[in-house]
Amino acid sequence: MFGARCARLLLRRCSSLPSTKTSVAPRQLQIREALEVQDPTGCDVKIQGWVRSVRSQKGILFLHVNDGSSLEHLQVVADPCLEPRMLTFGSSVEVQGKLVKSLHKGQRVELAAENIRVVGPCDVLAFPLKYKVHHSLEYLRELPHFRCRSNVLGALLRVRSEATSAIHSYFKENGYTHIHTPIITSNDCEGAGEVFKVEPANGERKPGEEHNFFNIPAFLTVSGQLHLEVMSGAFTKVFTFGPTFRADNSQTRRHLAEFYMVEAEVFFVDTLQDIMQVIEDLFKTVTDRVLAKCPQDAVLFHKRIAPGHEAKLEKMLKNRFLIMSYTEAIEILERSHQEFTYKPAWGQDLQSEHEKYLVRHCGDVPVFVYNYPYDLKPFYMRDNEDGPRRTVAAVDLLVPEVGELFGGSLREDRVDFLQSRLQRLKLEDTYQWYVELRQFGSAPHGGFGMGFERYLQCILGVQNIKDVIPFPRFPHSCVL
Amino acid sequence: MFGARCARLLLRRCSSLPSTKTSVAPRQLQIREALEVQDPTGCDVKIQGWVRSVRSQKGILFLHVNDGSSLEHLQVVADPCLEPRMLTFGSSVEVQGKLVKSLHKGQRVELAAENIRVVGPCDVLAFPLKYKVHHSLEYLRELPHFRCRSNVLGALLRVRSEATSAIHSYFKENGYTHIHTPIITSNDCEGAGEVFKVEPANGERKPGEEHNFFNIPAFLTVSGQLHLEVMSGAFTKVFTFGPTFRADNSQTRRHLAEFYMVEAEVFFVDTLQDIMQVIEDLFKTVTDRVLAKCPQDAVLFHKRIAPGHEAKLEKMLKNRFLIMSYTEAIEILERSHQEFTYKPAWGQDLQSEHEKYLVRHCGDVPVFVYNYPYDLKPFYMRDNEDGPRRTVAAVDLLVPEVGELFGGSLREDRVDFLQSRLQRLKLEDTYQWYVELRQFGSAPHGGFGMGFERYLQCILGVQNIKDVIPFPRFPHSCVL
Repeated sequence: MFGARCARLLLRRCSSLPSTKTSVAPRQLQIREALEVQDPTGCDVKIQGWVRSVRSQKGILFLHVNDGSSLEHLQVVADPCLEPRMLTFGSSVEVQGKLVKSLHKGQRVELAAENIRVVGPCDVLAFPLKYKVHHSLEYLRELPHFRCRSNVLGALLRVRSEATSAIHSYFKENGYTHIHTPIITSNDCEGAGEVFKVEPANGERKPGEEHNFFNIPAFLTVSGQLHLEVMSGAFTKVFTFGPTFRADNSQTRRHLAEFYMVEAEVFFVDTLQDIMQVIEDLFKTVTDRVLAKCPQDAVLFHKRIAPGHEAKLEKMLKNRFLIMSYTEAIEILERSHQEFTYKPAWGQDLQSEHEKYLVRHCGDVPVFVYNYPYDLKPFYMRDNEDGPRRTVAAVDLLVPEVGELFGGSLREDRVDFLQSRLQRLKLEDTYQWYVELRQFGSAPHGGFGMGFERYLQCILGVQNIKDVIPFPRFPHSCVL
Repeated sequence: MFGARCARLLLRRCSSLPSTKTSVAPRQLQIREALEVQDPTGCDVKIQGWVRSVRSQKGILFLHVNDGSSLEHLQVVADPCLEPRMLTFGSSVEVQGKLVKSLHKGQRVELAAENIRVVGPCDVLAFPLKYKVHHSLEYLRELPHFRCRSNVLGALLRVRSEATSAIHSYFKENGYTHIHTPIITSNDCEGAGEVFKVEPANGERKPGEEHNFFNIPAFLTVSGQLHLEVMSGAFTKVFTFGPTFRADNSQTRRHLAEFYMVEAEVFFVDTLQDIMQVIEDLFKTVTDRVLAKCPQDAVLFHKRIAPGHEAKLEKMLKNRFLIMSYTEAIEILERSHQEFTYKPAWGQDLQSEHEKYLVRHCGDVPVFVYNYPYDLKPFYMRDNEDGPRRTVAAVDLLVPEVGELFGGSLREDRVDFLQSRLQRLKLEDTYQWYVELRQFGSAPHGGFGMGFERYLQCILGVQNIKDVIPFPRFPHSCVL
């Protein structure tokens, strides 16, 4: 009883401790919490983490300890007599002591150790991460189970976690209902590329017999959009944030077989401008929040991985996104003096080289390109009726370096337009349910999707998409 | 400019409007927002949604409109001359008017309409949802694209969305880093049941040739645990919340082929008590938040779907969860006078009937059962060394009606114990990387998983797991 009261009194002096919970001394803190203490008047704390450096200087032992809660390490100072056996780079430790003001520059607090315990030793010769070495992202990719212990992947995954949280918050604060759209689906004809099929691993199949666990062929989803449309017809504003899949054999720095998409649908929306407004607001709000919450992590990327990227990102955030029609975009490309591998022409898809040119042309500010040719886009996009099957109300957001980051559209809500398009594609039976959505209390609506990994590439300046996801899956690789 | 200032002045009078954004009048509100206005002094608003009822009484037209943002409808009152054509149950409408205090009991505000527009009509004869009919959950299951428009599925999916948000918040507030563990994985031997394999749908395969997109066989994940363990070795506290899969041909009200798991791993954890504490705190904190945010939705279930469930849930929340060892549990079962289909015996798995008995025996309070027989559990659980391969530090949380809701364990962190177990199972090559995690800066650690759908069943009292997920996937069914 007395012990607990004592501890509480002590903790009050550490007035800025982020949580108000009390416990028996020493208080266990995450390193992020310890570093945030404003007035560390010698309160007793315990921290746990991994040693990032050990050195002795003028009879004092200095340790840097990191527990993944922040990029910054906590400096531990100790009498060398406290140094335990096997205290090396990479070992896990538990340190007890007093949190005090630091006299060393670059840090506010440090931990004056009273006890240091090596919890798990680390054979530094065998450990593939080395002290004071800036391992390349390529090298780290070869270490799927250890790369998260590097500064750079640590920073990346903290940003990813914070961005995930900020996206959920954004939609919640704006009145969207979160929906888990299905991963396994019987829809396979959205034209979004190659799909993976799903079957039981141990399914016994007789020769010539079609084995299907679900009675019908089942695939991994390429998009939750159609399912979200079902839900927007009940909740008005809905979003999903989950894994999507492509079986394309593309081995570029922009493609993965498994990646995450943020998708939203809004009912009662008449114009593409409404969709563009949500996209721009989402991008800017989430990015502002991530930069505010993970400033050091962002700086690591903007200084070390992509020098100069901070200014580029600031430009994206400070300026209104630009808007041009697909037809204008083609005209700009046709007027340009650049030699393109693919000659730009109305009716043709924008290639990566075209997207890059357009973004540069716009002064490296994100640009919305809208109203794409009818024949380039899937059946569910709304016909603009600006000519016989000429354009649909689709919009892509192109951003510097990454290219297409968002894709959205108004959905075809008119039963007759939708039915005749499905008939031409011989899909009217498959999408009977989708047509029915338009027959009972429908309304104009639209939505968009954002590739989450591309978003992270865009804000951090990371070249290769394999470096922004914990465990990348791509052709010929499914490690762990 | 003047218009916008006017609107802002007007909005200040609607002092309790939840958001501070301003726009030109009339202000568009979600129905939830409209219902929350404390002092509706005639501010101009626009709402959009679906008609849940239309009736005329004493020369006044009454509409109930719902937009999915709340279970409660907004009452619209209008002069019958405003009634547009095709205003029926199920049609989508846009209503403009003044938000005023309601004189009718059971509601604080209503909308005095100045304009009513039918956006999308609804053929009530053909529409499978009917006015004033309480459709059964079984009937609604046959309507995967419309059931979300019913009160009960609407309430369910709002609770699901709120619980998703509360789970993310819980972990964030407690210092966990969110990790997207992979969906496609080359691990297939965790012993968690049958798995689905993944292959490109259009992969060309020559006779006798093994076709693998990833070069190795790839499966849908049954758990993110092993990948989370990688991450807990860098971030200390991590969680994931995503889809998991089983290809079991079980057609019960407790199983799905695709379902969601909340999983967490904590490094530097020595005892099962630490794991149990997180589980209990997570369950209670998230449930309290859901009940606070969706009181009406919860009441719908606790009154209509599962009468009496409110008291049961309150009992779970108010009492400390109980704790017993597996050995004690078996003794209790053996001492009981109940006739079990499966005779309880030390070394045997607890069957559903045993779980139910134990929970009832504990007075319908959730009960932790810990220290299970070594041979019943997977290779990664920590040997308690209470005899030669006798028990492991595993814990399950059993809850009323649902049975097992959480499963967790301390992980085997000792290299020699892990290696010898993997050797006996002939898995040492497959899990070489997993052993390596223990060789460099390891520490005692543990974690748990919670079936999210079972959690929703538990708090709402829903019998069939197919009713708590937007698009259920199970043997012979993958609709939409």
